[in-house]
Amino acid sequence: MSERNIKIIVAYEGTNYKGWQRQKDAVTVQGTIEAALADIIGRWVRVHGASRTDAGVHAESQVAHFYVDSPIPDEAFAWLLSGRLPGDIVVRSARTVPRDFDASTDAACKTYLYRFYTGRVREVQFFRRRWRTGTDLDPAAMHQAAQYIVGTHDFKGFASAKDMRETTVRTVMSARAWRVADDEIDFEITADRYLYQMVRTLAGTLAEIGRGRWQPEKMAQILASRDRTTAGPTAPPNGLCLMHIEYHKNLAIPLDIGG
Amino acid sequence: MSERNIKIIVAYEGTNYKGWQRQKDAVTVQGTIEAALADIIGRWVRVHGASRTDAGVHAESQVAHFYVDSPIPDEAFAWLLSGRLPGDIVVRSARTVPRDFDASTDAACKTYLYRFYTGRVREVQFFRRRWRTGTDLDPAAMHQAAQYIVGTHDFKGFASAKDMRETTVRTVMSARAWRVADDEIDFEITADRYLYQMVRTLAGTLAEIGRGRWQPEKMAQILASRDRTTAGPTAPPNGLCLMHIEYHKNLAIPLDIGG
Repeated sequence: MSERNIKIIVAYEGTNYKGWQRQKDAVTVQGTIEAALADIIGRWVRVHGASRTDAGVHAESQVAHFYVDSPIPDEAFAWLLSGRLPGDIVVRSARTVPRDFDASTDAACKTYLYRFYTGRVREVQFFRRRWRTGTDLDPAAMHQAAQYIVGTHDFKGFASAKDMRETTVRTVMSARAWRVADDEIDFEITADRYLYQMVRTLAGTLAEIGRGRWQPEKMAQILASRDRTTAGPTAPPNGLCLMHIEYHKNLAIPLDIGG
Repeated sequence: MSERNIKIIVAYEGTNYKGWQRQKDAVTVQGTIEAALADIIGRWVRVHGASRTDAGVHAESQVAHFYVDSPIPDEAFAWLLSGRLPGDIVVRSARTVPRDFDASTDAACKTYLYRFYTGRVREVQFFRRRWRTGTDLDPAAMHQAAQYIVGTHDFKGFASAKDMRETTVRTVMSARAWRVADDEIDFEITADRYLYQMVRTLAGTLAEIGRGRWQPEKMAQILASRDRTTAGPTAPPNGLCLMHIEYHKNLAIPLDIGG
């Protein structure tokens, strides 16, 4: 049997993990999934994720892939993995894809959601999933501000200084902010790729605008400055969730490999 | 200044706690609140809860009271405590009440909700708050079964053998089960008092009936038997939440004590 490349879709609550990426002395999502996989197939295989989400960041639909020699059917991989994973990680689906599929480099765009909890009273069911701002925010100003980042821009002003990537130009397909409930405002962004802590820096900046401290036009100034110190604070990880990753590649597989 | 009796309403997610009641070597909700209170008033005071919820059980509205000599206004007690508590515990309100108010013995009735998650796929956002049954349940059969326990009955058949209380007669004011969503069924019960693990034993028994293994009439047989071994398994704590505690006592306070 030839080696299969399996694409999985994973949901997790990031609260109890030091992010996606495997680390030596910390519990991570990648490390936890690799351990579950090793338990099934009897050897350690690397699980390549599309996004290296930070500690405390959640995912509705992270995508990963791994190569494996195994007769286990696709469907069974999903529930065998889920059965070995803790309650805060679940493998939603597993599917054999062409051998050259790469969850990370083949991603056409990724959508993130950032949730602001604006209620006066702290709510225990929200603290893992929303940033409590303590004051109400103006969603119209935030939405207007978000329109400045749509398109292809240099996002250096919104990237952590720790980001060492050569180019800081990214394309944002859509960005919007709206009131979801009396005490919740959401910010959703879809872009081709992201810089380190870019969404959280955008969220922190939008919060300043939502509070009325800055005008929506401030977004254009930060982009033009290419200077991180002009932007708002980095919003905490708990409000952030990776919602969707899109692939434009044809993922149909030759019949002789099928799971 | 005379000593005040302060009633607080507390919400918590029980996942990370070994139940309400203080223990020597375990983190509990009571112990955590007492530590926060000691931090505010400078000395250790006992916080008396109405319900000793088990490890992993949640509360929307637990009630507790404590005696304190302090000029801090009622409102401020709520936010000072909440500010010192972790994200999974919040004090919703604080109010000075008559000195003879006792959160536990004055409770007229308590309402609990048990949530069954019946979806096929495990959902990460639900695992702390719902019992995943793995199969769908019949809410009509469960609701019919629940009607057998309404009224005053001997609930010995639904009490843990560890329960050492002298009388096992309790009065259930209402009990109902219904489909909340495609993949969620809830069971709500209001009773004057409860036996140890009574709601979880009822929930475990209702699940058996919802699965079709037993007929609704089984409830009457278990009551009549007064034998715990005839009932279903004890449902796990994560599905259970203390929703409301009712007091019929007049809680208005003499004007000279007011917070």
